[in-house]
Amino acid sequence: MEGNFTYCNPTKIYFGEGALENLTDELKKYGKVVQLIYGGGSIKKNGIYEKVVNILKKCEKNIVEDGGVMPNPTNEKLIHGVQIARKNHVDLLLAVGGGSVCDYAKAVSVSVHCKEDPWKKYYIDFEEPDCPILPVGCVLTMVGTGSEMNAGSVITNHAEKLKIGHVFGSEVMPKFTVLDPTFTYTVPLRQMVAGIYDAFNHICEQYFSGEDDNVSDDLSEALMRSIVKNSRKALKDPLNYEARSNIMWAATWALNTFLSRGKTTDWEVHMLGQAVGAYTDATHGMTLSAVSLPYYRHILPYGVKKFARFAREVWGISEEGTEETIANKGLEALDNWMKELGVARDLTSLGVTENMIEGIADATRVMDGGYHVLTRPEIVEILKESL
Amino acid sequence: MEGNFTYCNPTKIYFGEGALENLTDELKKYGKVVQLIYGGGSIKKNGIYEKVVNILKKCEKNIVEDGGVMPNPTNEKLIHGVQIARKNHVDLLLAVGGGSVCDYAKAVSVSVHCKEDPWKKYYIDFEEPDCPILPVGCVLTMVGTGSEMNAGSVITNHAEKLKIGHVFGSEVMPKFTVLDPTFTYTVPLRQMVAGIYDAFNHICEQYFSGEDDNVSDDLSEALMRSIVKNSRKALKDPLNYEARSNIMWAATWALNTFLSRGKTTDWEVHMLGQAVGAYTDATHGMTLSAVSLPYYRHILPYGVKKFARFAREVWGISEEGTEETIANKGLEALDNWMKELGVARDLTSLGVTENMIEGIADATRVMDGGYHVLTRPEIVEILKESL
Repeated sequence: MEGNFTYCNPTKIYFGEGALENLTDELKKYGKVVQLIYGGGSIKKNGIYEKVVNILKKCEKNIVEDGGVMPNPTNEKLIHGVQIARKNHVDLLLAVGGGSVCDYAKAVSVSVHCKEDPWKKYYIDFEEPDCPILPVGCVLTMVGTGSEMNAGSVITNHAEKLKIGHVFGSEVMPKFTVLDPTFTYTVPLRQMVAGIYDAFNHICEQYFSGEDDNVSDDLSEALMRSIVKNSRKALKDPLNYEARSNIMWAATWALNTFLSRGKTTDWEVHMLGQAVGAYTDATHGMTLSAVSLPYYRHILPYGVKKFARFAREVWGISEEGTEETIANKGLEALDNWMKELGVARDLTSLGVTENMIEGIADATRVMDGGYHVLTRPEIVEILKESL
Repeated sequence: MEGNFTYCNPTKIYFGEGALENLTDELKKYGKVVQLIYGGGSIKKNGIYEKVVNILKKCEKNIVEDGGVMPNPTNEKLIHGVQIARKNHVDLLLAVGGGSVCDYAKAVSVSVHCKEDPWKKYYIDFEEPDCPILPVGCVLTMVGTGSEMNAGSVITNHAEKLKIGHVFGSEVMPKFTVLDPTFTYTVPLRQMVAGIYDAFNHICEQYFSGEDDNVSDDLSEALMRSIVKNSRKALKDPLNYEARSNIMWAATWALNTFLSRGKTTDWEVHMLGQAVGAYTDATHGMTLSAVSLPYYRHILPYGVKKFARFAREVWGISEEGTEETIANKGLEALDNWMKELGVARDLTSLGVTENMIEGIADATRVMDGGYHVLTRPEIVEILKESL
């Protein structure tokens, strides 16, 4: 554990089939007005909306509707959600959906009492909230982002062609989250695999950073192995509770600040993927999978030892060879798993064209903390190789 | 993840060399009177006491001394500590020491405002506190018990020859904990290895329970491998920061409710070890190591598959053979590591004599949730084999 760190994650998790029943007790802790936040309406088809509303009514809450949160929640939607919360004097933001819905709820939570422009304050200037924060609760219906137990929030500004995430402090984490694996059964296959890859990549982003032999590296390998193993079970049998529940729990721990303690991280696959997302509105997990291999091949020479360890410990590659050969075998195994999953392995299939490359490169943030800080020409090269 | 569960762990961790400086900010959250809880006085020799007192004075706190907490804190000491807290209207219990000091602080925290007999209420009847709970902060100086980030508290009653642990709810967890690996440098070797074995065994207790292929099992293996690897480094070089810090962080996660989610557990090695502790006052980790092998050999037939997985994943045993052969090789590897560590491998060396066996067996609790529920003759047999 090289660097010093603080760890605090107070989110209360209710896990398992039927865990939604705990919502009744949680609601007692908050005031009367609940802003019910959800996405495109799939929760109305699969019955989850009705279940949640029934509990809210039984608890005599006033429900303020805030549906239609899009996959990459926009600044316009955020402004609208803040108006709803202010107008109705909302006491609790209840997010029912996937990562976008949770991200959006957290963005609203820090913006309702914010006197400045939230987009500029939080997503451009990366300032911390200095106003009261509305409490957030989550009922997760799609696995992958980890947003249900962290303080991250990604917002897209189409006017500025930017998709930016801010990781707030632990006071912005959801107060409680309901994780019922059966709620993820009706997620379309394409969304399921995108979520699985998203979770896996969260671990990679933290694992391929820092050269120390940290206990986080051992834990990361365990979570990656678990996700690969259970994704294969879930692909064969999407209603396998054991597989779906293991994936759900692993995905939560993949990005709740646990793995990153004592590590430096640059999140470069996400920086590339988010820039693609701002241009194409493609599914988040797919933007990550599309750029992963070209990016990892590019940085492999700067972290050969760790990529070889990845090959051995995550993919079980036991053959002899130079560290570089083994490292490359690991990336091949990753590529094969991506094929199995059926996630995007190029940007073209996501609607990216060559003339977008320069713009996407402009929108790609580069941070310190990984094996290699990309230059602009390198970003362009990686994006072109990803086409 | 077979069973449903709740997870909530709000303890704030400050980790790393120099992390004690964060105590200043934490102290601002609490009132003026701090009960300073510590053990036999080693913190006065290694300078940690002075550092803590200087911060308390700088923050203008009134310090109420409560030293002399013994390795297996007694009910008499608990009664005395509660009197101190009541008399001085204490606002914060600050535990500086190892697991016993933290356990004791938590026992005091739930007892100060308790109107009944705390021993009977919490440790005999296993009731939950229905009174206000004093906040606890910890500065850990010895690794192993996990008490710094959980709600467990073990108290020994010599009059009744009982050593009993109660795992309270998350409201009893420390509000904050300082984990500075350099604070563990001066711990005597015998205590260091006992702590390492204690942490390792916490993982075993949760791992050898429940037959499902849970993500917790993968995480447990990662933590066990990390502890074994880093214990070897620490044995060679006790001042190796990387090794000591990895052990410290792994030990915290070995027993902070994380690994046990979705698992059934019977904690039988601890039940045996605690009964031995009540009779001999031996170091906790040593009582566990002394009974481990005879116990595991006894239950191996009921969990062969998992013991074989333990052999392969934790000890890297790759040879061919029946599951039972592989499983036994894993226990041999565990025994060899115990030899390397130099922990007790028999009860005789801890002062247990044959005439104590019946009494220890009487004091051994048996819980459901493992591979096999021990009968009384089996307990006697295991204890005799451990002599």
